[in-house]
Parts: sequence; C-alpha cells; structure tokens
Amino acid sequence: MTIGLENIRIVLVGTTHPGNIGAAARAMKNMGLNKLYLVDTKVFPHADATVRAAGADDILEHAVVVDNLDAAIKDCSLVCGTSARLRTLPLELVSPKKCAEIVLDVAVKDAVAIVFGREKTGLTNDELLKCQYHVNIPTVEGFSSLNLAAAVQVLVYELRAASLMSDTDIKTRKYTKLAKADEMELFFEHLEKVLIEIDFLDAKNPRHLMRRLRRLFNRIHIETTELNILRGILTTVQKHKQHG
Amino acid sequence: MTIGLENIRIVLVGTTHPGNIGAAARAMKNMGLNKLYLVDTKVFPHADATVRAAGADDILEHAVVVDNLDAAIKDCSLVCGTSARLRTLPLELVSPKKCAEIVLDVAVKDAVAIVFGREKTGLTNDELLKCQYHVNIPTVEGFSSLNLAAAVQVLVYELRAASLMSDTDIKTRKYTKLAKADEMELFFEHLEKVLIEIDFLDAKNPRHLMRRLRRLFNRIHIETTELNILRGILTTVQKHKQHG
Repeated sequence: MTIGLENIRIVLVGTTHPGNIGAAARAMKNMGLNKLYLVDTKVFPHADATVRAAGADDILEHAVVVDNLDAAIKDCSLVCGTSARLRTLPLELVSPKKCAEIVLDVAVKDAVAIVFGREKTGLTNDELLKCQYHVNIPTVEGFSSLNLAAAVQVLVYELRAASLMSDTDIKTRKYTKLAKADEMELFFEHLEKVLIEIDFLDAKNPRHLMRRLRRLFNRIHIETTELNILRGILTTVQKHKQHG
Repeated sequence: MTIGLENIRIVLVGTTHPGNIGAAARAMKNMGLNKLYLVDTKVFPHADATVRAAGADDILEHAVVVDNLDAAIKDCSLVCGTSARLRTLPLELVSPKKCAEIVLDVAVKDAVAIVFGREKTGLTNDELLKCQYHVNIPTVEGFSSLNLAAAVQVLVYELRAASLMSDTDIKTRKYTKLAKADEMELFFEHLEKVLIEIDFLDAKNPRHLMRRLRRLFNRIHIETTELNILRGILTTVQKHKQHG
C-alpha cells in the first residue's frame, strides 16, 4: 500500500529544541516513515523529545546521529531541502505536493533524503546546494516560519498521500540507476579541479561559477552511466593538459 | 489571492495542553487564518500557549472562549469535524484536501468551522453529529493519533493551498530565459567538436555517445546564461589543446 516510504529519510540539521525532534518522529510514525537522521544536534537524546514523540520511541532509538549533512545523505539518489526563504539562488522550487510525487518516483528503489534546517536560520546556502530540489511550504508573507515539526508534518502528510495514490504507477515505473550524493560530490570536485587547471575559473570568485554549475547538474537527476561519461571527459581533458 | 480564509474558524474542543493551543495559533497564522474558538478549555490563557504561538499572539488575544460547541458554530453555514477514528456514524468522510475544496466553496461568502476534538478522546458522537463532514487524515493503522496542532497544521495547509488561485508550484525559472533549440544545436556541435579534438569520442561509434549526451543535456531545460558558461568551458578547452 505504501511502497517507497521505507526508503525516505527525514534529516534534521542543527535542531536546537529536542521537543521538535520528538514531534517530528511522531509525525513520521503517523504517516508510515521511520528513518530519522540528526545532523549536528546537541540536544539528543532528551526527555522532551521522548515526551513529544508520544509513542514513536522506536524512531528516536534508531535515529542516526551524524556530524555533517554529507554523512546523512551520501547514499541518497535524491536530496530535497526545505526552506522558508525564497532565495536569489534559483534552485528548482517545488510545493510539498509536487515534492512528494518526485520523491516517491525515486524512493521505489533508491534512498531519498528530505532535509530540514535549523529552527531560526534554516539551511545554509552550502547545504541547499547539495539538494536537487528546494521545497517551500506556501505561507503568509511576514509570518512564514513554520515550527520545524509542523513543516515535517506537512511533508510526511503529502508523502503518505502520494504513496497511497500512485501505488499502481510506481509498480510499473521503469527505473534506471541514479547517481548518489557522494558520487555527485566527487564529480563536482573533479569538475572544479579541471576548470582550475584550464584557467577557466575566475580566481577572484571561483565559488560563484561552481554554484551555477551545481545548480545546473543537480537538476538533471543524473544517471550513474551518464556521470561516468562526464568523469571520462574530465579525465581526458586533464591528460591533454598534462601532455600538451 | 486567498479569498475565503478570513471566513474560516478553527474550533478546538476540550484542549488539555495549552502548548497545543499556541502551536495551532502559529500554524493558523502561517497559513493566513486568524479566527480561533476555544470550547470548554480550562488551560487558557497560559504561558505555554504564548511560547508555542511564537508570534501569533494576536490570534490568542482575539480567541473566542465559549462553553459548548453550539456557541462556537452557531453562525456557520458549514461545519467539518475531524477525527482519527473511522466511526460507524454515517457522516460523509473526506480527506483534508477534499475538505479544503468544500470549505473554500462556502467560505467565499459564509462562515465555516473546522472542529478538532480532545487530545486523548477526540470529538464525542454528539459533537460529530453537529458536523456535515467528517475529515480524516490518512495515517498508519495502529499509530493513528496525530498531535492536535499537527492535525490543525495539515488542515490549514490544505486550506491555504486550495485558496491560492494559481498553481502553488512557484516557477522561479519562469522568469529566466531558456536556451532555444537552435542554441542547443550549436552547443551540441561545439561539444562534439571538442570531444573529437581531445580524442574522447569513440571513432567507431561517435553517434552513440552524442545521443547519450543530448539526452542528458536536453533534460535540464537549460538557461541561456548556463549555456554560455558551458560554451565558455568548451572554448577554453580548445585553446589549451591548440596551445598545448
């Protein structure tokens, strides 16, 4: 009935209120999700988390606690980041409903992460750049910051709704192997290295161009075989540079 | 843009945790609702409510406190009751999404109430019988009781989504200029030329790889400025090859 939900992890970055962790776990369990990742969280475990979990203790017990976002998403083929701010960096912006559809497509076979930022400041630009999609819950201007657990609730609600609806579609959907987050990081490192070697990167502002290129390649849902071709091209360019 | 939301009231019956009242007020304000009714509530006002409201104090200040459900809904043309239990009562059962559509239809002109029950026991049968619709948030069997504020969050989220006239998928890229077909062709020609120059293309089957790369880059809906960056990289590689 709910194929794919088991492959979706909720990643909370830098949470400061343990009650929010518990409430997020409860929302997850209500909707049939069970993989919780906690990045750089100083308030866990905590009694407030357990109280607000209200019976979702199993999710808290099995929560994976890591130091940085990379460690939480490295084996994920799709990473969606949530943010209340509509930034100047135009990541592909989707509604929770659209996000749920996209996520379920991939979660049939591969791991997917939905990433939530800090209560006060959200995700950093660097963290958002590791995401292929930017999810925004439409809110009132001037009072746009949802409680963290409330934002998780909206997303997992849409995920459950999508999983109940698109069951048949998912089973019959053709599937190819997508590149994982750590493979994408290696590609971006390689790309940056080559662009430096051929003197293409602006030494004054190398990060600007890399941000543009990340945004571009993150939109593709790139397949493993395609990534191998791109890596091959980069290596060939390097050989020519060395032997030139 | 959000016609009707001002006519929708959220009615909380017999709430026992003041924090839930505050969190519900915050969720309402986030989504553009502002009419809160509290029925038979012994824990209001309360510091916990104010803390969890996180700035939605105005909604708490103007909350209407009454003794019984009748007093809270008497001037409403439509009353929807929420419940985690699928009762034998022959109320019309709707999803949050469907409920939002029905509510907005009426709220354009008339007052509507959405009623939430007690944290532990929900609404009584008598209370549910005062409702035209019964809203059920789909959950996992065996862990079906949402936190009260989380349930309010789901409903007000759907109400806002329904109230937004246009598609809520905000297309930031609508405002950016996408590359045209002829520009893409010039890019592919340039790419093929460079790949031949650096001896990357398989001489026996050059078209196979180019088909793969076309498929990859055609998926991106690439922007003109992005295409210019990629063309710039190709030109730089060519210069290195020539001067190598």
